[in-house]
Amino acid sequence: MTAADIAALVQGELVGCATVEIRSGQTLEKAGPDQLAFWQRKHETELLPSTNAGCVVVDPETPAESRTMIRVRDPRRAFARALRAIIGTGQVESGIDPSASVDAAATLGAGVAVGPLAVVERGASIGEGCVIGAHAYVGPGAILGSDCRLHCGARVHGTSRLGDRVVLHSGAVVGSDGFGLVFEDDHYENFPQVGGVQIGDDVEIGANSCVDRGALDDTRIGAGTKLDNLVHIGHNCQIGRHVVMAAQVGLSGGVVVEDYAVLAGQVGIGDRARVGARVQLGGQAGLLPDKQLEAGGSYWGTPARPLKEQLVRQALANRLPELVKELKRLRARVEELEAS
Amino acid sequence: MTAADIAALVQGELVGCATVEIRSGQTLEKAGPDQLAFWQRKHETELLPSTNAGCVVVDPETPAESRTMIRVRDPRRAFARALRAIIGTGQVESGIDPSASVDAAATLGAGVAVGPLAVVERGASIGEGCVIGAHAYVGPGAILGSDCRLHCGARVHGTSRLGDRVVLHSGAVVGSDGFGLVFEDDHYENFPQVGGVQIGDDVEIGANSCVDRGALDDTRIGAGTKLDNLVHIGHNCQIGRHVVMAAQVGLSGGVVVEDYAVLAGQVGIGDRARVGARVQLGGQAGLLPDKQLEAGGSYWGTPARPLKEQLVRQALANRLPELVKELKRLRARVEELEAS
Amino acid sequence: MTAADIAALVQGELVGCATVEIRSGQTLEKAGPDQLAFWQRKHETELLPSTNAGCVVVDPETPAESRTMIRVRDPRRAFARALRAIIGTGQVESGIDPSASVDAAATLGAGVAVGPLAVVERGASIGEGCVIGAHAYVGPGAILGSDCRLHCGARVHGTSRLGDRVVLHSGAVVGSDGFGLVFEDDHYENFPQVGGVQIGDDVEIGANSCVDRGALDDTRIGAGTKLDNLVHIGHNCQIGRHVVMAAQVGLSGGVVVEDYAVLAGQVGIGDRARVGARVQLGGQAGLLPDKQLEAGGSYWGTPARPLKEQLVRQALANRLPELVKELKRLRARVEELEAS
Repeated sequence: MTAADIAALVQGELVGCATVEIRSGQTLEKAGPDQLAFWQRKHETELLPSTNAGCVVVDPETPAESRTMIRVRDPRRAFARALRAIIGTGQVESGIDPSASVDAAATLGAGVAVGPLAVVERGASIGEGCVIGAHAYVGPGAILGSDCRLHCGARVHGTSRLGDRVVLHSGAVVGSDGFGLVFEDDHYENFPQVGGVQIGDDVEIGANSCVDRGALDDTRIGAGTKLDNLVHIGHNCQIGRHVVMAAQVGLSGGVVVEDYAVLAGQVGIGDRARVGARVQLGGQAGLLPDKQLEAGGSYWGTPARPLKEQLVRQALANRLPELVKELKRLRARVEELEAS
Repeated sequence: MTAADIAALVQGELVGCATVEIRSGQTLEKAGPDQLAFWQRKHETELLPSTNAGCVVVDPETPAESRTMIRVRDPRRAFARALRAIIGTGQVESGIDPSASVDAAATLGAGVAVGPLAVVERGASIGEGCVIGAHAYVGPGAILGSDCRLHCGARVHGTSRLGDRVVLHSGAVVGSDGFGLVFEDDHYENFPQVGGVQIGDDVEIGANSCVDRGALDDTRIGAGTKLDNLVHIGHNCQIGRHVVMAAQVGLSGGVVVEDYAVLAGQVGIGDRARVGARVQLGGQAGLLPDKQLEAGGSYWGTPARPLKEQLVRQALANRLPELVKELKRLRARVEELEAS
Repeated sequence: MTAADIAALVQGELVGCATVEIRSGQTLEKAGPDQLAFWQRKHETELLPSTNAGCVVVDPETPAESRTMIRVRDPRRAFARALRAIIGTGQVESGIDPSASVDAAATLGAGVAVGPLAVVERGASIGEGCVIGAHAYVGPGAILGSDCRLHCGARVHGTSRLGDRVVLHSGAVVGSDGFGLVFEDDHYENFPQVGGVQIGDDVEIGANSCVDRGALDDTRIGAGTKLDNLVHIGHNCQIGRHVVMAAQVGLSGGVVVEDYAVLAGQVGIGDRARVGARVQLGGQAGLLPDKQLEAGGSYWGTPARPLKEQLVRQALANRLPELVKELKRLRARVEELEAS
């Protein structure tokens, strides 16, 4: 793509050479003459003059220099959009690798690619354009929409139904048994785990993350939701649309997370708790079982509290040594008064 | 099974139609006429009259209605028992998938099933009735009792010995090297990890969980213990019987957890700490290295304290703003007294 | 090896029989007559007289007994060194298992072993002496130095470059996509993840741990660094040399961890934060985004503070009930003064 093509795509204002050819993207420090970079005011100022990038996406007020730039309101977003267009969807040749084990009673749509040593079990249905990576697994009766991507070693158990364009990264597991126990006299028996998993369009699940099937009813993840690596989603969780969970977040059973909520890394949520829409939960926060967080709020700590309240508590805890001293001084003054 | 069969199995009192045929289980909301459901007082009252379930397991005092019910002391437990009986053990055809790699010098008992692209290494011994799932791995010399189940991608390294009916979920790893380091001048060398893993009967290990082999001696997990997903068990841990660990719990090296302890999600335990029998540890609690928790207690927080103490601390921390104000008021009054 | 060989290797003082043959190592409790054990003052005293070990590595001042001992300054270190020499490197036969899928356009050095059902993609380059375990995966174009070891099910994606003697344990993932999102109107799009991963010599990555590729530039892990199980390293992290991270540590994007830092279990680090050289971070500590920890310090808690400060805070929090009472008493005295 040329700089002019990119400017048109991101609806930016082109300054400099319209015909410079761009083949990939890089940081300002590392970019070369056929690469796109981006610069925002929060970046260091000296980076812009010194870059060798062929074209830089910049803030609107950035003064012209003897270099090719595209002025646009949100440089990071415009850069990401341009780079997605430049690199395309990463063409994978369709066809079934001869080493893969694909059951004769599985249904594969047009243009499906199945990588080396992948397994597709009987009754599985794989929509057109899906890419099933090396060592990936699609269980008996599992249903994948179109253009899904299972990276190397990702596993979808048989009771799962995925929408379109769902991406599972390496080692992600969808549809493993939930953790339901019944105490009998002196030992635990399993509560049967016979529900499924329903995953909406454009969901992405990170490397080695786990999404358990429901106990009776299904576990659900709404369209557009993104989970990072090593996330745990317990049975019967109901995750809304466009939710974001950073790495190592853990949800117990029956948790509800409403649309557009954002959970930072290592957050833990107890059984049946509810996280309202657009809630922001700070890193390592813990929400107790059956608790609810009101929509739109920011929360932090364990137990999770409104962020402002939590910050006040921390500030006061910082003042504790001073409070102890003040109390001591005051006692001395009272003693003096008593003595007089 | 008919409603009468189920009532007999769970020793409940049948009300309504004894011959209604039940084929599976569901929630009250979703159950249909050939499905079993259950209702307890803590469920919403309106659910019971409106369900379409063919039969409902209920509390003893539930008044009769024009529907088939089974009255029993613990409806959830009775439901689970009935459903386990209805669904059976999930018959898997025995035999070795032709795509699997099974070493000639491995020993397989009667009725063993080995799934597509599984690996069984030389000298491994697999007890009768075991199911080795697709992409599962049994290392050289590993020993599995009877009726074990390795789900897709589960891995048992060569120094491990599993009892009967052990279940490893997708991606679980048993017998990986422990994390033992020795500092030499300016870098770390490994402390050799040559111990094994011993796992008792009826143990279940969740998806993508890891149990490390011992350094010299073995890591041990007692019979009936249940681990959820993404749990880490460090080298030389000694886990008792019927212990429960929720998702993302992490145990460092040499930790002892006694029988019937329950560790909630994301709990972390330091090296050589000891968790007494029947201890309950709240979510995200952290126990420091070498510390001990007395049997039978409930603990929470980091560092872990008795639950009651922890709750008092939190309540007092909530009162800090008020205490600061009170101190200020008191100082003003003392100043007034001093001036008078 | 004989006791004399071992004494020479660890530069210790041999007491007893020089010719006793040692074949492996064990704990004092379990060791037999052909096994090496070690004893340090912190071990229980009665263990030493009662052991059946053929030879024991002990502290320098340990009095001679009727047994073979090697006196040395650091018994644990000497024991580890000896045991590493005794067990050797665990010889693996070189050659490609016939069930493995190795692309014709991959380059394999001399003495490489590729296990059953492993996958090596086109353009991958594997240095001499590497062992690629069962079900392991080496992506297109990935580069491994010499003598690396990929345990069963470990996965190296195509944009990764590993140094020499790198060890990935079961299920570890290197080079999965980073977690970069761009909000567009009402949904998230991906920020393209096109960077790589660079891993130095002698790095070890634990079971089911994940190291994401960089977004544009690379994620880097310096030589000699050791990561335990279930660790998450976000995109563009820059980890120094000889860093240690215990299990379940999570690093967000762009985090810098300098040489010789030690992160205990379940520590979480926010985006772009910096951990100085030789910092010690206590278990479950949390460092907020963009924060820095000065080199050489010990820190704990969330938000992470200097350890001493944190301990003082905890001690004061313990005294809160007493402070509340003291305040009440003081108020009563002031009231009395006011009344008089």
